Amino acid sequence: MEWKNFDLLKVYNKLDDLKDEVVLKEVMAGEEGAARVAKYQIPMSNGMTYSFAAKQVNDNVLAALQELADEAELTEKYKALYNGEMINTGEKRLVLHQLTRGQLGEDVVADGVNKREFYKAQQKKAEDFANKVHSGAIVNEDGEKFTTAVQIGIGGSDLGPRALYLSLENWAKANETLKMEAKFISNVDPDDASAILSQIDVAHSIFVLVSKSGTTLETLTNESFVKNAIEAAGLDPSKHMVAVTSETSPLAGNPDYMESFYMDDYIGGRYSSTSAVGGVILSLAFGPEVFNGILNGAAAEDELAKNTDVMKNPAMLDALIGVYERNFLGYSATAVLPYSQALSRFPAHLQQLDMESNGKSVNRYGEPVNYPTGPVIFGEPGTNGQHSFYQLLHQGSDIIPLQFVGFRNNQMENDVVIQDSTSQQKLNANVAAQIMAFACGKADEDRNKCFEGGRPSSIIVGDRLAPETLGALLAHFENKVMFQGFVWNLNSFDQEGVQLGKVLAKKVLARDTEGALTAYSELLGIY
Amino acid sequence: MEWKNFDLLKVYNKLDDLKDEVVLKEVMAGEEGAARVAKYQIPMSNGMTYSFAAKQVNDNVLAALQELADEAELTEKYKALYNGEMINTGEKRLVLHQLTRGQLGEDVVADGVNKREFYKAQQKKAEDFANKVHSGAIVNEDGEKFTTAVQIGIGGSDLGPRALYLSLENWAKANETLKMEAKFISNVDPDDASAILSQIDVAHSIFVLVSKSGTTLETLTNESFVKNAIEAAGLDPSKHMVAVTSETSPLAGNPDYMESFYMDDYIGGRYSSTSAVGGVILSLAFGPEVFNGILNGAAAEDELAKNTDVMKNPAMLDALIGVYERNFLGYSATAVLPYSQALSRFPAHLQQLDMESNGKSVNRYGEPVNYPTGPVIFGEPGTNGQHSFYQLLHQGSDIIPLQFVGFRNNQMENDVVIQDSTSQQKLNANVAAQIMAFACGKADEDRNKCFEGGRPSSIIVGDRLAPETLGALLAHFENKVMFQGFVWNLNSFDQEGVQLGKVLAKKVLARDTEGALTAYSELLGIY
Repeated sequence: MEWKNFDLLKVYNKLDDLKDEVVLKEVMAGEEGAARVAKYQIPMSNGMTYSFAAKQVNDNVLAALQELADEAELTEKYKALYNGEMINTGEKRLVLHQLTRGQLGEDVVADGVNKREFYKAQQKKAEDFANKVHSGAIVNEDGEKFTTAVQIGIGGSDLGPRALYLSLENWAKANETLKMEAKFISNVDPDDASAILSQIDVAHSIFVLVSKSGTTLETLTNESFVKNAIEAAGLDPSKHMVAVTSETSPLAGNPDYMESFYMDDYIGGRYSSTSAVGGVILSLAFGPEVFNGILNGAAAEDELAKNTDVMKNPAMLDALIGVYERNFLGYSATAVLPYSQALSRFPAHLQQLDMESNGKSVNRYGEPVNYPTGPVIFGEPGTNGQHSFYQLLHQGSDIIPLQFVGFRNNQMENDVVIQDSTSQQKLNANVAAQIMAFACGKADEDRNKCFEGGRPSSIIVGDRLAPETLGALLAHFENKVMFQGFVWNLNSFDQEGVQLGKVLAKKVLARDTEGALTAYSELLGIY
Repeated sequence: MEWKNFDLLKVYNKLDDLKDEVVLKEVMAGEEGAARVAKYQIPMSNGMTYSFAAKQVNDNVLAALQELADEAELTEKYKALYNGEMINTGEKRLVLHQLTRGQLGEDVVADGVNKREFYKAQQKKAEDFANKVHSGAIVNEDGEKFTTAVQIGIGGSDLGPRALYLSLENWAKANETLKMEAKFISNVDPDDASAILSQIDVAHSIFVLVSKSGTTLETLTNESFVKNAIEAAGLDPSKHMVAVTSETSPLAGNPDYMESFYMDDYIGGRYSSTSAVGGVILSLAFGPEVFNGILNGAAAEDELAKNTDVMKNPAMLDALIGVYERNFLGYSATAVLPYSQALSRFPAHLQQLDMESNGKSVNRYGEPVNYPTGPVIFGEPGTNGQHSFYQLLHQGSDIIPLQFVGFRNNQMENDVVIQDSTSQQKLNANVAAQIMAFACGKADEDRNKCFEGGRPSSIIVGDRLAPETLGALLAHFENKVMFQGFVWNLNSFDQEGVQLGKVLAKKVLARDTEGALTAYSELLGIY
């Protein structure tokens, strides 16, 4: 297995030659278009489909992308990763987040521990804890049940778990499995914690403090904030808090917490939703069975990602098409557009997942690369986005590839028929219409009403957003980002780019600054 | 006054020649950097400051930008706009949103009405209505006070008012002026309305239906959804709903609503927050005085925008620097990064404001332009973003200009001192540190830990996020977008790019499709 820069691969120039192969507005028109939709879709797990008919690919491009997958040894690199090779070269760590949901290959033993067993044990611990809280075996000082769970964490300890919670909150209500309401405190802005504290009943709340290192500034600050509030209510913080952290952190096994749940250095924050980082809060909110459903959905998708044939590997194909768009078609951003209000914060999670993983300019050996890497990721749910930034997507100067997500059915029972269609049908009619409008455009004598078309999109379609489909969606994007990192020869698992700001912020707080940093500190009223 | 394409202006080539003038990591270092911070900041209204020291400008560039402002006649075009010329050429409409907060020039009479008086009358109507609801002069069927106000609208009827509500919700709590809780229903996804309805007490809720045309699909669908719920609770919808619409819409003066408030065709959705579209819901939520504060803040900023000297006109300068970055430095996206949790949805509002206004490829006469126009806009509050996508901003392959916002004080009383600093100080230390880290970077032998720097940012700093400062912030960005549209010779006030999708969605619902659109409709379970 070889780690080579993308532009050194033989297939690189071939792909460059293929960039003008497909004129979307032509191939998507008429009956040829219908045939493309039928042909260019492949199954994901859990009854989902990845459709890429509206991408600028044809059989030639797909064959070249298969060559790329083979030459870049994507399957072998994934295998090396889940078998426990040190893929995170910068921090010299294994990369094991997939092990939180299944054993994909050989046993991985690190620090003398079978890591799959370790993650399962932590899940079991979260399950037992949640069950005891729900049954009333664990209660507050007055012997009353806890009703609310509040996650205190930032970045990966916030965005993924929050996106997953919001994705299933209404589904859980409809299925009578919402055990506790969940809230999230993340920002060091003191108004964030104040606002959440004003919305909850502290006496009936469990706070889940999440920090792998146990030293995250924002999280420890918010912990103190919350502890003050608990004490001000005449209560004992150690009866209201649990910790999710690494075994070596100052929070581990600390009597200040009712219980400690463990993750480790082999799971990066943005990949940690299926570890205890997501497991504790989601098991408390929805019950362990629902969290297990998410894990099962993700595990099925992880299995699919093993396929060497890109036409049987939706995450790999999605990744390769993205690379083709970024490096040969020259597109620098991607919009994620779920047609599901429940996925309102899923784009924010993907923004971290993708931009923090592949927003890099050096390869895994620290050498500069000569090609663009990760794109800007942004998005909002449809149909809302249609009434907002879609204007630029349709008629703006740059082409921005689109990643749609849709479901045949909504989560809650409630719907209404107006003008012979349900809201859900209207929602889906809109996403179907958008795909075609972006691909084919429409000529008009009034140039202001003219749509050039040629704007590529893919869509993931599922039956309903539920624990399994949500887990599959999560893993699809994790694996997509991983494969893109392999192609670009990046280390997608460190984040050195966030360090400098932390160092300088500490200097400001220690008043150890000069020049412009002093001037800004004064402008902002810190000095 | 002449409307010319940007690349036909004399100053265009001069600006292109100036693009390598400033090496940020050099000019921002040491004492020169401190001097730059002091020199390159200009006052906004309401005690706010626009600081652009960390932008790639110097006196030469600023002089050229002044030439651009003069040659493009920005002041004259703004004046023409607020004096009632038909600036929205595509739809043949005046553009009068600034008139909702002040009389900037001559009286504007349209359709036989003095428009300033018209907008003031609508404000007064909203004020009286809100006062009656708060006092108990208007009550529900059981004679009880209303406690919740729910806005039903999408796009500009949602994003701006929602962003403003969230911006002041905690401020209002702290200042005991939160009169009613506000909620928002926007998406046609039936789970959106269901979720909100499950959170509120319908019997004590007023629904504010907002649609200028009275024909917006999502809004009318959600209205039916809500009416069903009201009727299911044994209540009369006409005793729980008001309409915000144009005088010619089917909703106007309709007995189905307790009251109708009017806007008109001269205010585009994304510019409508200071009209009745924002005025009714915000007056209900916070009281009319607070909404008035927003208007006053915006009016002061609108006045500043009249200055011909760019050093006295922060919105114009911000606009010109953005054009310089987009057209000569080649940056295709801008990140908006407020260090204030209360501004969590402000970037989503700016995303619509900017991308829907200037995401266009033809000029105001419908002729194609040969230069890039509006950038992609995205953002999340700091410090959250630092733990998410900042990795790419620091070390990714593309340079993305940053627009920071910060406040010296937080909104609520609560704060906590940890390690000798408050949370607010930590928050602001982070933004100061980020500006410097982006500008100057840091060398490191380990290339993976190396920061190239040279990444430009500006920051708007205020004392506290309150009604006036929020209004000023809103107007600053509206006017920035307007000036950029003038430079690019666009019509920033129509949105033809959203039409095609609507037409095709209707065809899907009428089953009047063929080819790929039929295939997608089947895939999505509509057929």
